[in-house]
Amino acid sequence: MGTNTQFDFVENGSVTSPLGFLACGVVAGLKRNKNADLAMIFSEKDCSFAATFTSNLFPAAPVQYDREVCAASKTIRAVVANSGVANACTGLEGYQNVRKMAEITASALSIPVEQVMIGSTGRIGVQLPMDVIENGIRMGAKALSAAGGSNAAKAIMTTDTRPKEIAISFLADGRRVTLGGMCKGAGMISPKMVIAPHATMLCFLTTDAEIDNALLSRLLAKSVEGSFNHITVDNDMSTNDTVVLMANGVSGVKIEEGSAAAEQFAEALAMVTEHLARSIVFDGEGVTKFVTVEVTGAADEKDAELAARAIANSPLCKTAWFGCDPNWGRILAAAGYSGAVFSQENVSLDFDETPVVRDGLDAGTPEAELAELMKHREFAVRIHLGEGNASATVWTGDFTYDYVKINADYHT
Amino acid sequence: MGTNTQFDFVENGSVTSPLGFLACGVVAGLKRNKNADLAMIFSEKDCSFAATFTSNLFPAAPVQYDREVCAASKTIRAVVANSGVANACTGLEGYQNVRKMAEITASALSIPVEQVMIGSTGRIGVQLPMDVIENGIRMGAKALSAAGGSNAAKAIMTTDTRPKEIAISFLADGRRVTLGGMCKGAGMISPKMVIAPHATMLCFLTTDAEIDNALLSRLLAKSVEGSFNHITVDNDMSTNDTVVLMANGVSGVKIEEGSAAAEQFAEALAMVTEHLARSIVFDGEGVTKFVTVEVTGAADEKDAELAARAIANSPLCKTAWFGCDPNWGRILAAAGYSGAVFSQENVSLDFDETPVVRDGLDAGTPEAELAELMKHREFAVRIHLGEGNASATVWTGDFTYDYVKINADYHT
Repeated sequence: MGTNTQFDFVENGSVTSPLGFLACGVVAGLKRNKNADLAMIFSEKDCSFAATFTSNLFPAAPVQYDREVCAASKTIRAVVANSGVANACTGLEGYQNVRKMAEITASALSIPVEQVMIGSTGRIGVQLPMDVIENGIRMGAKALSAAGGSNAAKAIMTTDTRPKEIAISFLADGRRVTLGGMCKGAGMISPKMVIAPHATMLCFLTTDAEIDNALLSRLLAKSVEGSFNHITVDNDMSTNDTVVLMANGVSGVKIEEGSAAAEQFAEALAMVTEHLARSIVFDGEGVTKFVTVEVTGAADEKDAELAARAIANSPLCKTAWFGCDPNWGRILAAAGYSGAVFSQENVSLDFDETPVVRDGLDAGTPEAELAELMKHREFAVRIHLGEGNASATVWTGDFTYDYVKINADYHT
Repeated sequence: MGTNTQFDFVENGSVTSPLGFLACGVVAGLKRNKNADLAMIFSEKDCSFAATFTSNLFPAAPVQYDREVCAASKTIRAVVANSGVANACTGLEGYQNVRKMAEITASALSIPVEQVMIGSTGRIGVQLPMDVIENGIRMGAKALSAAGGSNAAKAIMTTDTRPKEIAISFLADGRRVTLGGMCKGAGMISPKMVIAPHATMLCFLTTDAEIDNALLSRLLAKSVEGSFNHITVDNDMSTNDTVVLMANGVSGVKIEEGSAAAEQFAEALAMVTEHLARSIVFDGEGVTKFVTVEVTGAADEKDAELAARAIANSPLCKTAWFGCDPNWGRILAAAGYSGAVFSQENVSLDFDETPVVRDGLDAGTPEAELAELMKHREFAVRIHLGEGNASATVWTGDFTYDYVKINADYHT
């Protein structure tokens, strides 16, 4: 890309930065710690929309429900998302509860039930306490405000340590378009999403541009592929991953396929989703280091992806990164069992710009120098397979005591 | 199987329990902690043999070398294995060093170089200090004894906390045959071995039966498939995995294809390799629980294997096991992203004999009861996919603070 557009970061930007969106986050009572646990986003006008969901064979009840909304509805107005309970592996009762959530929301907001989408995150296998949910939704409908974006971002957090949100704006044909987004992540993060189906990351995007569903879908699929589908915290793909993008047109800017504005919007969407995806890794469970695994020189994209994911998910690589231990043998070993095809003697490896391996052998950089580099909060592991021209990048974190602590005793 | 054979466990059994084998473990000086680091096994007579090695694309130099021995030699007499340095990712120099190890051994033992196989385990990417190795081999040649099996088992340990060895014997046609074995494991354990190529587990097996190479190969391949290839500590397949089985015939018992004795030997080999494979998991890095993941009712074996490995390698499942947290949703989620095809509503799950999930839903067993069961040192996670008749079993451990500790700061 490269439209030479000036993108402006909105200060304290959120899903309510685009015109015509209201939001809130309330304490329904689903979490033991009494933090906010129910978020609502509402548009003053009908929104075109697009969504992607987990490709886990066990999609949560809200994912099943939302897929039907995607198939049946041309527009939506509201999204409700709760944390604390994932409503996954909950059978028919779980599904009926999602439908009730949508009905309660529709009634509280005086909109058709077909215009409501639902997201859930939290413990799997537990039924939603519907009285708590109903009360929360009714509170939420009253709490909606144009200043409520940040509260909504807090309400979808589980083991996240901070809310993740952003908004950017740009001029299209002289008029300002704003794109906002929020997400949560932390654990069970290895999204592989497909359009109208993917992780438990939840991500909600809003824009005041006018864009039809077909174009919105194409743009979202591309941006998800380049962002959320390239992160992994623990290689555990969730049952609940959901990304929803809503466009209400309130800015008065109509964006059509093939236009310069569409290019601009795509660029803005890539920035927002990349920012949010990276922030999920930075705030991944127990993560102390953000590691970019970059594979180049692969025979084809499949091999590049295999090698990048094997390295990014290797417990031995991730614990070594935590310990600032260069131990590059573990990285080569992971590439070696990934299934990618290449020759040991052609491989080179760099940490950031520092040579680690050349022609399959130690490049001679002193270990202490590599260990020093690894003390940074962020560094890149760059392996070149010497086979072809394909490449892949995965963003991941290290594996730490805190990851074990958080997940050996997980209660919301 | 089931030959109704009486198998006797040899007290303090080791690789020198079979007749005609000598062994030793010496301190060459490769380890900082000054523990024994070089093991040698020597047979008084020529041995037929079979071996399996890592399928990692980056096989270590000793694996490359041993494959050539397998192709070129009809018999072997000695195996030398060092710990501390893996001699992997060491290029031509590494390969030449293995050859030198074999030559020094051959010279010290007065046997042809073609009769020597080499194993290495330890840090990747470091060259062997050949003066230390040479000195160690010469010491080892003098230290060989019929009582040296246990010292050899200690000398191949890296992060292992205890030596792993066993010997069993049985009567074939009225004469006693003994089968001994030792191995090391601990980390980088996810072997997928193929005959005359595979983990860093190292395993050396000895028997005083007479068996030709072809039959030995078939028997070894089958026993490795049913044992080492079904364990995973961390899903990191090593560059060095090696299993060597030596048969010297000193017992005077000749075992031929299709004979009753071959059945008995296969059964004994299965017992020995299963014992050693399980002991690797029990002593896996930081492991506090031994978990048998059993998948049944899969559409085909590939699906069964995919689901079993996804569960056994899931960081979220493994940390929950460590925490005695039943959290069965993580197990179903892992099966759901494994690539296996099945329907959520047909799935059942048991911990040992206790129902956890029925028809995809909570079976109603109180969490406290499940948590209590998980406090045992060993339990089984048994999932039935409800699709067909295929099954798979994987032995694995939990994921603990100690795994992170050991691997965030690994120095031999």
